[in-house]
Amino acid sequence: MPILNKDMVLCISLAARPSNLGTRFHNWLYDQLGLNYIYKAFTTTDLPAAIGGVRALGIRGCAVSMPFKEDVIELVDRMDPSALAIDSVNTIVNDDGVLIAYNTDYLAVAELIKQRSEVTPSSSVLLRGSGGMAKAVAAAVRDAGFTRVTVVARNEEAGRRLAGLYGFQWQAEPGNSTADLLINVTPLGMAGQDEEVQSFSDEAIAAASLVFDVVALPSETPLIQAARRAGKPVLTGAEVIALQAAEQFVLYTGVRPSAEQIRQAGEFSRQPA
Amino acid sequence: MPILNKDMVLCISLAARPSNLGTRFHNWLYDQLGLNYIYKAFTTTDLPAAIGGVRALGIRGCAVSMPFKEDVIELVDRMDPSALAIDSVNTIVNDDGVLIAYNTDYLAVAELIKQRSEVTPSSSVLLRGSGGMAKAVAAAVRDAGFTRVTVVARNEEAGRRLAGLYGFQWQAEPGNSTADLLINVTPLGMAGQDEEVQSFSDEAIAAASLVFDVVALPSETPLIQAARRAGKPVLTGAEVIALQAAEQFVLYTGVRPSAEQIRQAGEFSRQPA
Repeated sequence: MPILNKDMVLCISLAARPSNLGTRFHNWLYDQLGLNYIYKAFTTTDLPAAIGGVRALGIRGCAVSMPFKEDVIELVDRMDPSALAIDSVNTIVNDDGVLIAYNTDYLAVAELIKQRSEVTPSSSVLLRGSGGMAKAVAAAVRDAGFTRVTVVARNEEAGRRLAGLYGFQWQAEPGNSTADLLINVTPLGMAGQDEEVQSFSDEAIAAASLVFDVVALPSETPLIQAARRAGKPVLTGAEVIALQAAEQFVLYTGVRPSAEQIRQAGEFSRQPA
Repeated sequence: MPILNKDMVLCISLAARPSNLGTRFHNWLYDQLGLNYIYKAFTTTDLPAAIGGVRALGIRGCAVSMPFKEDVIELVDRMDPSALAIDSVNTIVNDDGVLIAYNTDYLAVAELIKQRSEVTPSSSVLLRGSGGMAKAVAAAVRDAGFTRVTVVARNEEAGRRLAGLYGFQWQAEPGNSTADLLINVTPLGMAGQDEEVQSFSDEAIAAASLVFDVVALPSETPLIQAARRAGKPVLTGAEVIALQAAEQFVLYTGVRPSAEQIRQAGEFSRQPA
């Protein structure tokens, strides 16, 4: 990395608990592509002042994570359709003081599903989860034309609300249900207390054409491992994270990295610092 | 320089026209000393929001340059005596959300004059200039115990006001005046329209014990060159800039670089980017 200079463009992230992922992903690509940019993660206890600082300091881009994705809406100047679709922002672009909000999680999931030939809009879908990311995935699935979708969520109120938004079914537990496309958007399988939990059964995997786990840390969750063992095509959280970060990268820099560069940056970002 | 990570501490500067000096000086020392810090220059058209951003983002330090040195006073929480002495701030330290303002120009000039054995508080001083930096130098000279000081400034109102603040004399032009310590705090000799101008005469230099030019770009001004030719000890703007930046560095990091490291960082900072 070259020595920093005054003309470098700064991009940041705001999260309650910043991770190293974005910082490593973006800086690795800036370096590879010879862009005069730097990226660094921040936290804040004063979101309006932090966004005011983004504006006043001319910070070019700002990734937005939990718990700021909804609160930031009233602080920006314009909502891109990707953020409007789910009333949730994960990316702000500062165009000469005008703050435009996007949701690249939604964009990335929509793009990844569109790329896969294993499923079509007529395929059935089990979507497990009812949080903010589940909403982004549900909207992307709906906008990709899927209609035979069941939201699986223990929290009945949140599950029914999410299903209702997009005309989907709801059920509390996966039970014996099967579908062409299985999608996990819960913390099941994520490093932590539920890291051993496989979010869909071996039977459901056996009946599926494509298995998609949004969990990224680790991306080789029990679900993905079981799907690989069963010889099923998979879509991992690592792909989502890398593509959504790549979409942020394009918005901030105007430069689109190659698929191989995105893959390498994603791999680099998940290595221990 | 290592790849950036989320835990890196950010320090910035705010100026109407940012230079590369601070960015190069601080980043060079962070690298040499293995500190997990980065530094970058910014400009702004909204000083309150920029300072609010420093607070909300937990930016550790903020250098303040023209035209913000006075306006920033009402935006900080505490004034260090160095900033109170001249009602001017060039450095803000963010201690867990409490913003403390300093003036390291004052601190550096006071320290540099104290170090020199060629002059003592009983020495006579000609101080040319009446702007913000002249005030920092005048306060440092006064606080070092000098009383036989004449402010030389074409602008009578500013010159008389500055002299009056510290009980000094005022005159409009250097004329045939001589003194033990000559100090230039005008743009005479600075790169630009007055770069050829020698701010004190050869006769004044011949009568002096120490010649001090605050101009740093270039630091080998016509005054300094003439003093060297006459075999006179000099104090250059490069030394002021390096020491004031070093004092900022200590305030931000708690680490004091060696004199040799400060010298090298100053040299590096003045090289073309």
